[in-house]
Amino acid sequence: MKHGRTSVGIVGGGPAGLMLSHLLQVSGIDSVVIETRSRDEIEHTHRAGILERDSVRLLVESGVSDRVLHDGHEHRGIELRFGGVSHRIDFQALVGASTWLYPQTDVFIDLANARVRDGGDVRYGVTDTAVVDVTSDQPGMLFTDVDGVEHEVRCDVLVGADGSRSMTRSAVENRQEYFRQYPFAWFGILCEAPPSAPELIYTRSDRGFALISQRTDSVQRMYFQCSPEESVDDWSEDRIWAELQARLAGEDGFTLKEGRIFSKTVLPFRSYVCEPIRHGNLLLAGDAAHTVPPTGAKGLNLALADVRVLAEVLERAVLKNDKSALDAYTPRALSRVWKAQYFSAWMTTLLHAVPDATEFDVRRQLGELSAVVDSDHGRSFLAESYTGWPS
Amino acid sequence: MKHGRTSVGIVGGGPAGLMLSHLLQVSGIDSVVIETRSRDEIEHTHRAGILERDSVRLLVESGVSDRVLHDGHEHRGIELRFGGVSHRIDFQALVGASTWLYPQTDVFIDLANARVRDGGDVRYGVTDTAVVDVTSDQPGMLFTDVDGVEHEVRCDVLVGADGSRSMTRSAVENRQEYFRQYPFAWFGILCEAPPSAPELIYTRSDRGFALISQRTDSVQRMYFQCSPEESVDDWSEDRIWAELQARLAGEDGFTLKEGRIFSKTVLPFRSYVCEPIRHGNLLLAGDAAHTVPPTGAKGLNLALADVRVLAEVLERAVLKNDKSALDAYTPRALSRVWKAQYFSAWMTTLLHAVPDATEFDVRRQLGELSAVVDSDHGRSFLAESYTGWPS
Repeated sequence: MKHGRTSVGIVGGGPAGLMLSHLLQVSGIDSVVIETRSRDEIEHTHRAGILERDSVRLLVESGVSDRVLHDGHEHRGIELRFGGVSHRIDFQALVGASTWLYPQTDVFIDLANARVRDGGDVRYGVTDTAVVDVTSDQPGMLFTDVDGVEHEVRCDVLVGADGSRSMTRSAVENRQEYFRQYPFAWFGILCEAPPSAPELIYTRSDRGFALISQRTDSVQRMYFQCSPEESVDDWSEDRIWAELQARLAGEDGFTLKEGRIFSKTVLPFRSYVCEPIRHGNLLLAGDAAHTVPPTGAKGLNLALADVRVLAEVLERAVLKNDKSALDAYTPRALSRVWKAQYFSAWMTTLLHAVPDATEFDVRRQLGELSAVVDSDHGRSFLAESYTGWPS
Repeated sequence: MKHGRTSVGIVGGGPAGLMLSHLLQVSGIDSVVIETRSRDEIEHTHRAGILERDSVRLLVESGVSDRVLHDGHEHRGIELRFGGVSHRIDFQALVGASTWLYPQTDVFIDLANARVRDGGDVRYGVTDTAVVDVTSDQPGMLFTDVDGVEHEVRCDVLVGADGSRSMTRSAVENRQEYFRQYPFAWFGILCEAPPSAPELIYTRSDRGFALISQRTDSVQRMYFQCSPEESVDDWSEDRIWAELQARLAGEDGFTLKEGRIFSKTVLPFRSYVCEPIRHGNLLLAGDAAHTVPPTGAKGLNLALADVRVLAEVLERAVLKNDKSALDAYTPRALSRVWKAQYFSAWMTTLLHAVPDATEFDVRRQLGELSAVVDSDHGRSFLAESYTGWPS
C-alpha cells in the first residue's frame, strides 16, 4: 500500500472531475484525480453536447482550450416545430446569447490534454476505489492503479464526480434522494448524411417528440421519443426514417436528409437529485449529484456549473483553511439544479406525447406552445433558460 | 304565441350577452337578449372579478361606463409568495399594463344600465327557453316572458351566452368536449376586515394554495385550496383563520387582518372547452363555450374577448350579409381560449399542492417558482399572460 496526500482528492475523471482539477491548479491547489475507465475508453464513447454560453466561457477563459470556438458550431437559436410549422427561438436577438454544438467527448479530450500539458495528476484505469473517513479532517481515497499497486491518498477534501452510478454518493449519510421516472425514452441514431438544418429542431408531433441535431458536415444525430422498453433490433433503417419523416412532416414540405444509420441506442430518461450534496469533507458534483432528462441539454452544463461553485468554495476552504466555506455549496449548486430540473421537465412536457394524456391535455399543450412562441417574453424565457441562467 | 324578429338573438343576459348586445347596437345591429334570471337576482349574486387591461378598455371605450376607472382598483402588480417570502410581479414595470379589481357583479350592473339607457331589448326572468332551426337561415329562440306570454323570435344569427350550464350548447351537433378535473377546489370567504395588502397575494405553501384578494376598504375576499368534497360547515371562523394564517406565514412576519366571516363557499375547479363553438347560425360565447379554473382570473376576460371577436364577425355577417364571416369565429376565439387554459393550468400547478405529488414534484415546483421570479423574462411572461394577451 502506497500512501499519498493531496489537498483535494477527486473521484471521477470525466469533464466535472478534470475541470475541477484544472481550476484548482489555476488557484494553486493540488489535487489527484482517479478514474476507473481508461482515457482511450472515454475518448471513444460518443456523447452529444450542447454547451451553454458560460460553459464555453469557462473552457476558454480558464485556459483549458479554445478549440470549441473553432471546431464547435455556434447555434444562435433553435427551432420549435409543432403543427407542422417551425418557429425559431432566436437566442441572440432575444437574450444576446448562443449555445455551442460541441460533443462532450471533445470537452473531455480538451480537458484531458490540458491536464497533461499542465502536469495534472490524473490516474486512469484504477480499480477497487473507495472513500473513507469522509467526516474526518483527513478523508481518504483508496484505489489500485493500472499497474496493480494499491494506494491510499489522504486529503483535506474529497470530491465525488463519479457519474450517475456514483460510488461516492453512498457515503453521504442521511441523504434524501428525489426521483422522477418518465413514461418514455429517446431512440437515438447517428447517420451518415449531410445536415438537414443548421440548428437543432425540437419537434412536437401527434406521433411523439423528435429532435434533429447535428454532429459534423457528414454525420448527423437524431432522436425520437419511444417506449423505455423499445428494442433497437425492432427498428430497421426504413422504419426509423419513416418514423422520423412522419414526425417532421409539415405544411412547409420539410424533409430530412437520410443516410446510412451506424448507431442506434435507447437513452434512459429520468430525473434525480441528491440532497445534501456535501457530507463532512465529501462533496458531490455533476451526474453523481443529479441527473436530468436530455430534453433541455442541461446535464454537462450543470456539471460544469457545479464545478464553478465548487472551485470557489474549495479555494476558501483549502487556501484560507476555512471549512465553513463548504456550507454554501449545497444551497448554491442545488438552486441551479432545481431550476434545471424544472426547465428539463418543462421542455419535456411541452414537446412529448404523454401516453395517458387526454384530448384536453393535448390541446392545452398546443395552447402552451402557441403562448410561448407568440410572445417575445415567452421566447425569451425559454432562450434564457436554454442558453443558461447567469451564475 | 307572439312572433318577433331581430338580427341577432342572444340567449343569456350576463356580461357576455349584454356586452355583445351593446356592441352590436353601436354598429347599428338590433338584437334581443333573453335571460332566465331576474335583473335583481344577478345584481345580488356576488361574483369576484379581475379585469384585464383590454376588458377595461372595452367597457370604457365602447361607451358602456367609465365607473370601473373610479370605483375599481387598479392593480399594477401581484405578489407571488412561496417559501414564506413575497415576490412582486410588477406588471407596469414589466409589460406596461395593469389589471383592475372590479367585481363581475358591477360589470353586469354597468352593462344592464347601459342597455336601459340605450333602449336595448333585454328580457329578464324568461322561462321555457329553446333554440330552433340553428342551421337554417332563420334560426329562432322561443321563450315565455315574465308576464307568461309565449314568444318566438326569428333572427339571422343566434348567440348562446347562457353560462356554464348552457342549454344552447346542446344544439351544437358533433361538438367535441374537452374536460379536465382538478383534485382540489377553493374555499372562498368574504369577511369584514380592512385589506391585508394592496394587491393580490398568490401563495404557495406546503399546506396548499391561498389567495388574498380585496373587495372594499372594509370587506375582503380570500380563498384557500381545499378538497372538492369539503363542507363549509366543518370550518369555524377560528379554523379558517388558523389555516389562512398558516399558509401565509413567513420570514417577514406577515399576518392577515381578521374579521367576521359572512360568506363561505366551495368553488368548483375544472376546465372545459367546446369545439367548434359555431354550428350553422348559432355561436357560443363565454362560459357556455369554455370554463377555466379561477387561478388565472381569466373567466370573465375570456367571455369579453369572445364578444370582441363575435361583434366583429357579426358585423360582417349581418350588415354585409356575408355569413362566411362566421367561419373565423371558432379558430380566432379558441386560439385565445387554449392559451388561457394553458395559463390557468400553469398558474394552478405552479401554486397548488397536488395530492399525489412526490417530493421530487414539490422541489421541482419550487425550482419553477424560483426560475420565474429570478428572471425578468419569466416575470414578464407571467405578467403579459395575466394582464391579457394582445387581441
